[in-house]
Amino acid sequence: MNTPQTAAFLKKLDNVLLLTHVRPDGDTVGCAAALCQALRDTGRTSFILHNPEITATYEPYAAPYWAPADFAPTHVVAVDIAAPGLLPENAKQYAGRIELCIDHHPSNSGYARHTCVDASAGAAGELLYEIIRVLTPITPAIALPLYVAIATDTGCFVYSNTTSRTHRIAAELLELIDVSAVNKALFRTKSRTRLAMESRMVADMTFCDGGRAVVMRIPLSLRQELGATEADIEELSSLAALVEDTDCGITLRELEPGTVKISVRSGPRVDACAVCAALGGGGHRAAAGATVRGTLAEAEAAVLRALAEATEA
Amino acid sequence: MNTPQTAAFLKKLDNVLLLTHVRPDGDTVGCAAALCQALRDTGRTSFILHNPEITATYEPYAAPYWAPADFAPTHVVAVDIAAPGLLPENAKQYAGRIELCIDHHPSNSGYARHTCVDASAGAAGELLYEIIRVLTPITPAIALPLYVAIATDTGCFVYSNTTSRTHRIAAELLELIDVSAVNKALFRTKSRTRLAMESRMVADMTFCDGGRAVVMRIPLSLRQELGATEADIEELSSLAALVEDTDCGITLRELEPGTVKISVRSGPRVDACAVCAALGGGGHRAAAGATVRGTLAEAEAAVLRALAEATEA
Repeated sequence: MNTPQTAAFLKKLDNVLLLTHVRPDGDTVGCAAALCQALRDTGRTSFILHNPEITATYEPYAAPYWAPADFAPTHVVAVDIAAPGLLPENAKQYAGRIELCIDHHPSNSGYARHTCVDASAGAAGELLYEIIRVLTPITPAIALPLYVAIATDTGCFVYSNTTSRTHRIAAELLELIDVSAVNKALFRTKSRTRLAMESRMVADMTFCDGGRAVVMRIPLSLRQELGATEADIEELSSLAALVEDTDCGITLRELEPGTVKISVRSGPRVDACAVCAALGGGGHRAAAGATVRGTLAEAEAAVLRALAEATEA
Repeated sequence: MNTPQTAAFLKKLDNVLLLTHVRPDGDTVGCAAALCQALRDTGRTSFILHNPEITATYEPYAAPYWAPADFAPTHVVAVDIAAPGLLPENAKQYAGRIELCIDHHPSNSGYARHTCVDASAGAAGELLYEIIRVLTPITPAIALPLYVAIATDTGCFVYSNTTSRTHRIAAELLELIDVSAVNKALFRTKSRTRLAMESRMVADMTFCDGGRAVVMRIPLSLRQELGATEADIEELSSLAALVEDTDCGITLRELEPGTVKISVRSGPRVDACAVCAALGGGGHRAAAGATVRGTLAEAEAAVLRALAEATEA
């Protein structure tokens, strides 16, 4: 469905539960908050299913909309969720009855009954903006989470997924809200623990693929040593993408003993999505991820094999 | 003059020399390049006066427009230059005959015969966009330096000077150009040496003033050990301004044995200029500096005394 069709479909729904993805980022949380507020503004009942992995960074945007424990939804909608495997544990009970998914991941598996996917959108928030404006006037309470969605998924308008459309929507949103405090908090503040994590990751980074790829690691032991929270390590994979003279940044994060989350950020030479797809993951051409079983060293060997295969082809 | 008046005025000029400011940044260079190209597109002769302090970062945007040594301009225009004191040495000969200044600094001294100043613009590039579009169609060769001007002066749309207008202009420019490579180079690249410097500065940072001030140090030995160039350490004082729960970031850089450059970045509680003035330096309330004699430890003791006095008052 395109965005006008999606808006028309949403107009027919009431008692709507909104789902966000595991390790929730600004895009999934911002989209859910904006849509929930928009549905309420048009007189409908709507909640966001509590996401147990919500971080302090994004909790304030979602908290006003968390569903009460006894909410029995008539309709279930997923935002920014590419596949059922990305549903949090408590959302899996709804996996078979998701009527609508609004997403911008090209890898979207089409699991929902209706899907509104536009991979040209820098953030799912761009699609939500276009959908919501058909439903109801955009208020500051809708604009702020939409801005968070769009700004976070584009690295504050710096990643290559930023388009003319991204800026045009931001221009509309900034007519309604002051984003100085949000920008300072999201993009110009780092916790001491996060700075320490980055410092250690840089000190231990290694290079491969003829110096064109950099590998950074977040062992569980480092996280424990520094007492890092989820907020301290979120989006840490962007650090590897900064290193001069490289065009592939790989971050290996030990989620628990024997499980490693791999993140790949890449320039045009490397298809990050292909690399991660070979490991059972997915994402975008320039930013993708996969979660694999094994030690950090085994995960590193696996991703480097996948990288070699993807760049050979 | 407003921007339509400025465009009308520019239409009457030919043989135009454009001036940029000392320590040229992306805004002054981008504005000059865009205006020079626009004037040429309308059949006029125009050049930019060579800026001896141009850095490798911005040189490519200005180089096609440098004036030949024998260029005798009929008209002289300044872009993003708030006062005659900010003219490079080789531009001072034109100080008395600047017919037009296009700028966004509220402190503009009104030194030019005609001044187009709009302090609500995040970058002078926003004004140049509005002026140039009246003169001639915006081409990619004009759009790229305008984007550089606007993106650099707003920290890539993150500083509080970013407005709806900023985003709307960026949206128009992105219809014409791909800025992925520019964004990557300007905002998403750090040299390995710079990353290593930051890593070490963070590892050794200390806190004082009840945890509200952070102190970072760049000993000469660290610079030598890492083989850091000037480019590797420029703007490193911004690192201390990122630390969560602090509102005063102090960076101590040993310039040579016995000489230390102190940089202070602060929030509203601390007047950085007062702190540095007590040490013989100066600057703005939120960002100031001083150069003192002594060891790193002596400089640190001196700045902490000055900080205590400034915050007691």
